[in-house]
Amino acid sequence: MTARNLFLLPGDGIGPEAMGEVRKIIAYMNEAMNAGFVTDEGLVGGCAYDAHGAAISEADMQKALAADAVLFGAVGGPKWDSVPYEVRPEAGLLRLRKDLQLFANLRPAICYPALAAASSLKPELVEGLDILIIRELTGGVYFGEPKEIIDLGNGQKRGIDTQVYDTYEIERIAGVAFEMARTRQNRVCSMEKRNVMKSGVLWNQVVTETHKAKYSDVQLEHMLADAGGMQLVRQPKQFDVIVTDNLFGDMLSDVAAMLTGSLGMLPSASLGAPDGKTGKRKALYEPVHGSAPDIAGKGIANPIAMIASFAMCLRYSFNLVKEADDLEKAIAIVLDKGIRTGDIMADGARQVGTVEMGDTILAEF
Amino acid sequence: MTARNLFLLPGDGIGPEAMGEVRKIIAYMNEAMNAGFVTDEGLVGGCAYDAHGAAISEADMQKALAADAVLFGAVGGPKWDSVPYEVRPEAGLLRLRKDLQLFANLRPAICYPALAAASSLKPELVEGLDILIIRELTGGVYFGEPKEIIDLGNGQKRGIDTQVYDTYEIERIAGVAFEMARTRQNRVCSMEKRNVMKSGVLWNQVVTETHKAKYSDVQLEHMLADAGGMQLVRQPKQFDVIVTDNLFGDMLSDVAAMLTGSLGMLPSASLGAPDGKTGKRKALYEPVHGSAPDIAGKGIANPIAMIASFAMCLRYSFNLVKEADDLEKAIAIVLDKGIRTGDIMADGARQVGTVEMGDTILAEF
Ligand SMILES: CC(C)[C@H](C(=O)O)[C@@H](O)C(=O)O
Ligand SMILES: CC(C)[C@H](C(=O)O)[C@@H](O)C(=O)O
Repeated sequence: MTARNLFLLPGDGIGPEAMGEVRKIIAYMNEAMNAGFVTDEGLVGGCAYDAHGAAISEADMQKALAADAVLFGAVGGPKWDSVPYEVRPEAGLLRLRKDLQLFANLRPAICYPALAAASSLKPELVEGLDILIIRELTGGVYFGEPKEIIDLGNGQKRGIDTQVYDTYEIERIAGVAFEMARTRQNRVCSMEKRNVMKSGVLWNQVVTETHKAKYSDVQLEHMLADAGGMQLVRQPKQFDVIVTDNLFGDMLSDVAAMLTGSLGMLPSASLGAPDGKTGKRKALYEPVHGSAPDIAGKGIANPIAMIASFAMCLRYSFNLVKEADDLEKAIAIVLDKGIRTGDIMADGARQVGTVEMGDTILAEF
Repeated sequence: MTARNLFLLPGDGIGPEAMGEVRKIIAYMNEAMNAGFVTDEGLVGGCAYDAHGAAISEADMQKALAADAVLFGAVGGPKWDSVPYEVRPEAGLLRLRKDLQLFANLRPAICYPALAAASSLKPELVEGLDILIIRELTGGVYFGEPKEIIDLGNGQKRGIDTQVYDTYEIERIAGVAFEMARTRQNRVCSMEKRNVMKSGVLWNQVVTETHKAKYSDVQLEHMLADAGGMQLVRQPKQFDVIVTDNLFGDMLSDVAAMLTGSLGMLPSASLGAPDGKTGKRKALYEPVHGSAPDIAGKGIANPIAMIASFAMCLRYSFNLVKEADDLEKAIAIVLDKGIRTGDIMADGARQVGTVEMGDTILAEF
């Protein structure tokens, strides 16, 4: 068997603690299942800035490019709030996404049954919720040029960002959404602001044409992004797969994540295009939550989102579908047993720390 | 007394029905209170396109510019889904905002006590909710140039929109937010994506400097816009005044409106700068809900948002503060009495149509 190369970037805040629990699962899989994972590790975000003066070093970028998959923790914290824009912690993540061409960001918003009560929404609106948000991740206003602050003189400055989408970028992300929908409820809702943005007009056209040409078996709906945000809050279960651009995806997936009451539990996968020869996709897996500097280093962070991200890695990068299912089931079992970290604590549950949560999940795996 | 000039643009869908109820209130105020309102009326949106081939005619634009205040209903509907981009119904609204320089959009997200149960959020999270979202309305990605679709040949097109903010635009909207906060809980939360957008970096700087220079008595917080969306869903009552750009404001105010369970009830005001000589501001008042073509013409639409928008008009354009308060109280009384249109119907309430709702509010006024 060829080695499975994982590059670990724990990052800042609670990233390293959460990653620690994944490391145990990797070690277990190597031992008990002969999984053949080979891991290497690097720095990203504030810790990389402290070490190298950049949010990720060139050497670590090379390792990320060479790996079969990157596991990413979290970046940022008050310590780095005033470092220059170019080397701010987020720049490391954005560079990884761009240079690895991870255009497809898969963000499941699922509501773990044991946690429906933790949602701020009425339980009947979120019980059983299972949405997959497909966010375009390498285009749009995140990367378009010009992107600058110009000094106009006279005390005036001008801040400029550029939203750009080309046909092929929309086509390929729509393709991912339709393919994913086929493995689910076969429904896609595409969101943009075509009533205000030209990129939205093009987005709408290309999604419509892609649907017609290759995916007419899938049910397609279009919704304005602002109305989409409303509908997510009003009746989230109406959605199966949502496909949207980089910035709307950022906003809408965060709202959706919060709806589930399971924010500390939600994983994400960022995928590139399949390689022409090998069929392999570059990939990065990352929890949806941030670096939570306020609770970092205390051993109380919830490692579930990181572990669930590793489950996505097993599924999408290594086709270890059964192992991925088993790991996700282990998480659900532990939650059903009433074992909780502080962030999802509930009456009658037993509160544990990061390490015990990881151990308990591993024991059920 | 000089005349108070109102220009009415009922628009499409349920716009005309809702406006009809405001017309009754205007007539009553002229008769009973000698209010001196003089009204004229025009076309905007799809109906203007049908009549003139444009989303608003030049003649009506002139009238809007000359009026003391514009009352706007709603625009759009499936009938005009495929008219050219330049003359789509929304173009009329965007032109009004831009040409009247209505840079400050005030969107209160309040939860009428009688309607807390209608929210998809748990009642304790929204009861008593009272947020004021101040959205910048004449800048950003809505109006920045270039804004186009380019044919790249080879079957590829490129959609481009440009997000632009100048110092003075951020300064003046921040000023409005701080001033408003002083009349409320004295707290402002500014939202942007400074970790990704240069316009966000500038936004953050200018809001910070404006605060320091002139409003340091107001409590100021900064939040990333995606986190802001999350926090709105998680714990909306943490906010007093939120200030944000045009596109984030569009998204966040819709989410906030939906949280309240009172979508059909929410008004908005769009204000220009005070005139140097007269101190008067150009202004447009508009319900947050859309044209709801599915229920148009049936006499069942909820006119409350339109009536509440007129209350904002009384307050902000004519300084008729007592009258505005009284009108808002009349709405609350009618709701407390259990009188409801279909969209906010609840067990034990009495369902009425548009006209009866308007009459009942007028009777309590
Ligand atoms: C950290 C930040 C750059 C990032 C984004 O805006 O994409 C985050 O919010 C996310 O959603 O992954
Ligand atoms: C109708 C549309 C152009 C408008 C906007 O995007 O601003 C609407 O959504 C709003 O929020 O007023």
